[in-house]
Amino acid sequence: MDIKKMLENDRVKPYLLKARYGIEKEGQRVDLSGKLTKTDHPKSISTRDEHPFIKRDFSETQMELITPVTETLDELFNYLAAIHDVAYRSMGDNEMLWPLSMPPELPEKEEDIVIAKLNNPENVQYRQSLSNSYGRRKQMISGIHFNFEFGDELIQALFNLQSEIKDYQQFKTEIYLKTTRNYLHYQWLITYLYGASPSSEKNFFEEDSLNEPVRSIRNSKYGYTNHSDVQVLHSSLEKYVSDISLMVKRGLLVEEKEFYSAVRLRGGQHVSDLKCHGVRYIELRNIDINPFEKNGISYEQAEFLHLFLIYLLWKDEGNHRDEWVKAGNFYNDLVALEHPLEHTQFEGDAKNIIDEMEHLAEFLDLTVSDTLFINLRQMLMDPSKTLAGRLYKDSEKDSQGQVATSIAKENYEKSWDKPYQLTGFTDMELSTQNLMFDAIQQGIQVEILDRQDQFLKLQLKDHVEFVKNGNMTSKDSYVSTLIMENKTVTKKILHQHGFRVPNGEEYNDIDYALRSYDLFSSKPFVVKPKTTNYGLGISIFKEGANYEDYLKAITLAFKEDSSILVEEFLNGTEYRFFVLNDKVCAVLSRVPANIKGDGKHTIEELVMQKNRDPLRGRDHRTPLESIQLGELENLMLKGQGYRMDSIPKNDEIVYLRENSNISTGGDSIDVTDQIPDDYKKIAVDAVSELGAKICGIDLIIENTEVPAANKNTYGIIEANFNPSMYMHIYPYKGESRRLTMHIIHYLFPELLQSQSNYGYHYKNTDLQCYAVE
Amino acid sequence: MDIKKMLENDRVKPYLLKARYGIEKEGQRVDLSGKLTKTDHPKSISTRDEHPFIKRDFSETQMELITPVTETLDELFNYLAAIHDVAYRSMGDNEMLWPLSMPPELPEKEEDIVIAKLNNPENVQYRQSLSNSYGRRKQMISGIHFNFEFGDELIQALFNLQSEIKDYQQFKTEIYLKTTRNYLHYQWLITYLYGASPSSEKNFFEEDSLNEPVRSIRNSKYGYTNHSDVQVLHSSLEKYVSDISLMVKRGLLVEEKEFYSAVRLRGGQHVSDLKCHGVRYIELRNIDINPFEKNGISYEQAEFLHLFLIYLLWKDEGNHRDEWVKAGNFYNDLVALEHPLEHTQFEGDAKNIIDEMEHLAEFLDLTVSDTLFINLRQMLMDPSKTLAGRLYKDSEKDSQGQVATSIAKENYEKSWDKPYQLTGFTDMELSTQNLMFDAIQQGIQVEILDRQDQFLKLQLKDHVEFVKNGNMTSKDSYVSTLIMENKTVTKKILHQHGFRVPNGEEYNDIDYALRSYDLFSSKPFVVKPKTTNYGLGISIFKEGANYEDYLKAITLAFKEDSSILVEEFLNGTEYRFFVLNDKVCAVLSRVPANIKGDGKHTIEELVMQKNRDPLRGRDHRTPLESIQLGELENLMLKGQGYRMDSIPKNDEIVYLRENSNISTGGDSIDVTDQIPDDYKKIAVDAVSELGAKICGIDLIIENTEVPAANKNTYGIIEANFNPSMYMHIYPYKGESRRLTMHIIHYLFPELLQSQSNYGYHYKNTDLQCYAVE
Repeated sequence: MDIKKMLENDRVKPYLLKARYGIEKEGQRVDLSGKLTKTDHPKSISTRDEHPFIKRDFSETQMELITPVTETLDELFNYLAAIHDVAYRSMGDNEMLWPLSMPPELPEKEEDIVIAKLNNPENVQYRQSLSNSYGRRKQMISGIHFNFEFGDELIQALFNLQSEIKDYQQFKTEIYLKTTRNYLHYQWLITYLYGASPSSEKNFFEEDSLNEPVRSIRNSKYGYTNHSDVQVLHSSLEKYVSDISLMVKRGLLVEEKEFYSAVRLRGGQHVSDLKCHGVRYIELRNIDINPFEKNGISYEQAEFLHLFLIYLLWKDEGNHRDEWVKAGNFYNDLVALEHPLEHTQFEGDAKNIIDEMEHLAEFLDLTVSDTLFINLRQMLMDPSKTLAGRLYKDSEKDSQGQVATSIAKENYEKSWDKPYQLTGFTDMELSTQNLMFDAIQQGIQVEILDRQDQFLKLQLKDHVEFVKNGNMTSKDSYVSTLIMENKTVTKKILHQHGFRVPNGEEYNDIDYALRSYDLFSSKPFVVKPKTTNYGLGISIFKEGANYEDYLKAITLAFKEDSSILVEEFLNGTEYRFFVLNDKVCAVLSRVPANIKGDGKHTIEELVMQKNRDPLRGRDHRTPLESIQLGELENLMLKGQGYRMDSIPKNDEIVYLRENSNISTGGDSIDVTDQIPDDYKKIAVDAVSELGAKICGIDLIIENTEVPAANKNTYGIIEANFNPSMYMHIYPYKGESRRLTMHIIHYLFPELLQSQSNYGYHYKNTDLQCYAVE
Repeated sequence: MDIKKMLENDRVKPYLLKARYGIEKEGQRVDLSGKLTKTDHPKSISTRDEHPFIKRDFSETQMELITPVTETLDELFNYLAAIHDVAYRSMGDNEMLWPLSMPPELPEKEEDIVIAKLNNPENVQYRQSLSNSYGRRKQMISGIHFNFEFGDELIQALFNLQSEIKDYQQFKTEIYLKTTRNYLHYQWLITYLYGASPSSEKNFFEEDSLNEPVRSIRNSKYGYTNHSDVQVLHSSLEKYVSDISLMVKRGLLVEEKEFYSAVRLRGGQHVSDLKCHGVRYIELRNIDINPFEKNGISYEQAEFLHLFLIYLLWKDEGNHRDEWVKAGNFYNDLVALEHPLEHTQFEGDAKNIIDEMEHLAEFLDLTVSDTLFINLRQMLMDPSKTLAGRLYKDSEKDSQGQVATSIAKENYEKSWDKPYQLTGFTDMELSTQNLMFDAIQQGIQVEILDRQDQFLKLQLKDHVEFVKNGNMTSKDSYVSTLIMENKTVTKKILHQHGFRVPNGEEYNDIDYALRSYDLFSSKPFVVKPKTTNYGLGISIFKEGANYEDYLKAITLAFKEDSSILVEEFLNGTEYRFFVLNDKVCAVLSRVPANIKGDGKHTIEELVMQKNRDPLRGRDHRTPLESIQLGELENLMLKGQGYRMDSIPKNDEIVYLRENSNISTGGDSIDVTDQIPDDYKKIAVDAVSELGAKICGIDLIIENTEVPAANKNTYGIIEANFNPSMYMHIYPYKGESRRLTMHIIHYLFPELLQSQSNYGYHYKNTDLQCYAVE
């Protein structure tokens, strides 16, 4: 079986870079001064042991972040960044993540390191025995595990090119075994390039057993390794499985998973599963946390690892397989303990490997970043460019602890910079980003079925829910959304059920509309296209209209749509009620774009000041939009006798727009607690008559202090089946209403159940909806 | 209170023609030779006593058709026509409706007239007592009742102009009372113009008591009137109510509703309700069936009645109210018994009334048909233009019975001419027309909420269902339709659940799509825009493609959409499975437009022949589309070495299109019974995984005889959330599947329940769905 030739075959080529990835990243929680925190794992994270994304590792302070399995590196890093955002913002604003593999200063007394307070007693017991066997200090080291699976199409294509091995599963296992043995043989190269644990902080070592700095304490014999009597051979899967079993039987390992190696073969829950199912993927475990990357590992590193694994599959291995692996462990220990600024003793070998990798990539048409090989060669030529080298050099000025603290602080600030966004997914709609944040926090699997289309699959155990645009779900019936989409139908149904809607008529014919002039002429009324689009084609006559103006308005509306509505105009303030499952979760009042004078600054300056709010931006990427100073705003100012350089009086409010849309710079003001129950009841009842479960319904109310009993105090303008949520979550003024979390809990009611089971009642006050009887 | 002045007020004018209408029309069922039928009321009609549209009147053969209340005459006549269609097609093809008020030849023995076999014994008993009191023959007379209500805005506007009457309800009652008294006074005009029962048929009169022909037997004392000792005064509501109660008390009337008058005051279930609620509307009962109108009354007649009622409200009445009414009854009997071809003795009065009406209409800006007054004057000048005159003159050649039979036959043929349409609603989508037909037949209230948008409200007692486009309902969740709308998401979900879908990738970037050439080049594949529109931008490569062709195809697809799909091409036949509530209700195979040679005719002639099928037409107004002979068809012929004037061999099939869409002349072939259960199960299971309840899912199957166990025997192409239904109901070949009735029964399962309660099990075989275990 000539694997080199096989890899070069045209039938294999299209699939060479197909793979599946996953990252696990550990890290210690510290306070803002870089001290190990004394707090528990954050309560806002669903704290079940089996949280898919954010767990506790050995200690209560050690967070483990886990990505889902992805099919591209882009996706992988998107999820990794997003999970970091969730972790940071769930910890609250007094904590951050330590950016090094080596822990920060540890307590003097080992017992003060708190073992993770998990729910399952077995999990706690396992940690207790690790603590007995290795000491708690060593367990505080953190690292990155990189899970890698060759694409099935790739292995299938390779399999089809040979006839030596008849069994597909066996073939696959051999592929991974060869790659693994070569990885173990050459692991020193990873340690050289990406080793990043040169020095320990206070109280890590009980005595000065090690001559620091080195390249990687973590990857050396002083790091996270088994006792030397634990020996596992990689020459065959049978040997590997039986060796590990033997170690457990002899008591050298408490559990199979205690076997620490630079690579772990994976294929099931237990090592013994490998015998039945073969190797399904491998877990690279010798990656130190990259201090210079917010996520602890760079995209280029991952790209290197992928290419390196293809190279290792391609590259011939030594004849004596077990010796080959053993030599690798030996070389690695040497490199790990080298000074971070000295050239490695294997520099020549490293240069050869990198040259070969580059040739292979070219030959096989593998696309990689332009800078990958340049950077690799630089690191090889100049050890101060390696991660350990950089960290050590930075630490020469300050201490390593100070460097780490200031890096952590930077990461912390980035995570809090735009709290309405979810890093990795900022191209998606804000509501979807918020929903994904909450889903991750609650431990719900999030799969993006169509990114452009904002289409998510959420899964909690066997319970699957699909969500589009943040709140289009299985809970609403199709026809109820169609009802809301059609204003005439919505109005008819609400009217039939006794709600007040603006009187009016729909016209499909201009002559017929004109003949109805008498019906409206003397009252306040509005003319609008049936399907309105950003307010185009709308004319409002607050005191009736003469025939000429009526004709103009009708003609204008018909330019936008083949059907138009002429309706009674209702006086009052417009409120958006967000109704979810027969409860009012938020009420918002929207105020047209405006500024408040201070008697000193011009209107233009005041607009610029107001636009500096980080919540304001362009194109719906922020919860509020910047106020514009365009033609319409200037006209509006002119109408009030102002220009852009006028200076309004102190506390004077100047409006720049007639319409109150948030998209044209309007202010969103939460008034949920101020709106009386009787109006909330109208909103809930109306939504219920439309058969809707998730709905943003707009009411005009003249005076909320006047009881709603009199039907003439309000009017229902329209109902929206995909109401914007972010304007409630991040209002300009008033309390935030975390609607996306309400959606999550509505879709997955079992979450609240399970949290109360564990004694963690959800008590966040902004998660209260108004149930109206 | 000067009602004349009030009616001319500008605040009243806009509402003058606002009104609500309803029609009830009785008619005898006859066989195709015009003989009274001996069959029961059709079983296909839901036979509950309270059917809102199609009931039995006195006898089992007497059908009563009832429109819903409408706000325009257009709507009124649409429903009236539609209900006629349903009645005709429900009777089956051996029966028709007698087009005259006077019944056809009656049985010699009165007892052979069968009293309606109603479910409620009280209803049967009431008919028995009528039969005792008037004899069954007289009860066989049929007529039209025209229900009329002035628009509430009109009465409100009038009310606001006066201060004499403080109570709105009382004011309204006075409006109706005046109109009613004047109507009764001038009823002879209706009898003159629209009386249409000049002669009786055999066995109606026991002896020759009447000198036929007359204008209206029905409206004369020989017709449908109470015994002369029944006297009810109209001077006040109190008097009216107490008189009727008295008549019942005295036993002169069996029930209140036995009081026959040209106008009945309406306001509730019982006459006594009038006292509490006042008069809500009036029922004009003196309208003979118009033999010359398929629906028994013309639009112009209804227009006249509306205008006449406004005129009667406007017109001063006599000072002695009861005398005024009494005189009217007397005049009417005179006119009713005039010879249909002689001038009426009230010609001068009639002329005055018509002149006044015309002036009033002009003065009040009331728009009426241009021909209304011309026709009225013609009828006045020439009695042979009145309905009675026309019917009598036509009957001079043949007998009246023969004339009626041939008119009935014409109406019958019109009703069966396009069985896929519902008269009155032919502008709507075929599926919606079919659904409305079935709803009416099942006695479900149908309200059109938005006609252009095909939006219906269906109601059975308190149970309301909204339906758009025939099958968008409350049963499907919103997100499941969004899943189906997105091909990539649909495929992902089906693939995750182990169904075979074409392998492929979605691309949003042309370069990325081109780089993937190798993935597809050597296999059959298809390139298409993500959102396909009538097949634009699709390229199929059945044997792979070279790079140049691949590039062309990709470019073409990106012209249609910003996202494209490149997918494996599956060989086989495409089947459309219509799945409803986890059952397969229909399977269709679609064959591209084609003709079958006969060795004699040219292709062009054969196409014209095939297009003569009444099921074929243009623009989706028929279940099948005409085959075109355009550019594409000519190209396709050329490719096969044919021209339009080629003569294909006997039995040779020549295809004119590559694609099998029905919209481009394809044939629909029902294969429901031929498709094996295992493929039906795949369709049902796949739809279930998409969370859908109503779905048209397309499977490619290579050979239906090969069991589906092997996943490679089929592939799922797409799922449609608004699948066309009419192509299953009216297939080109194979059995019809009444999917709209399935939808009705799915939405209203109580229908099946109630039918079985009455012993009428639904046994129509085409209403069977395949439940697959």
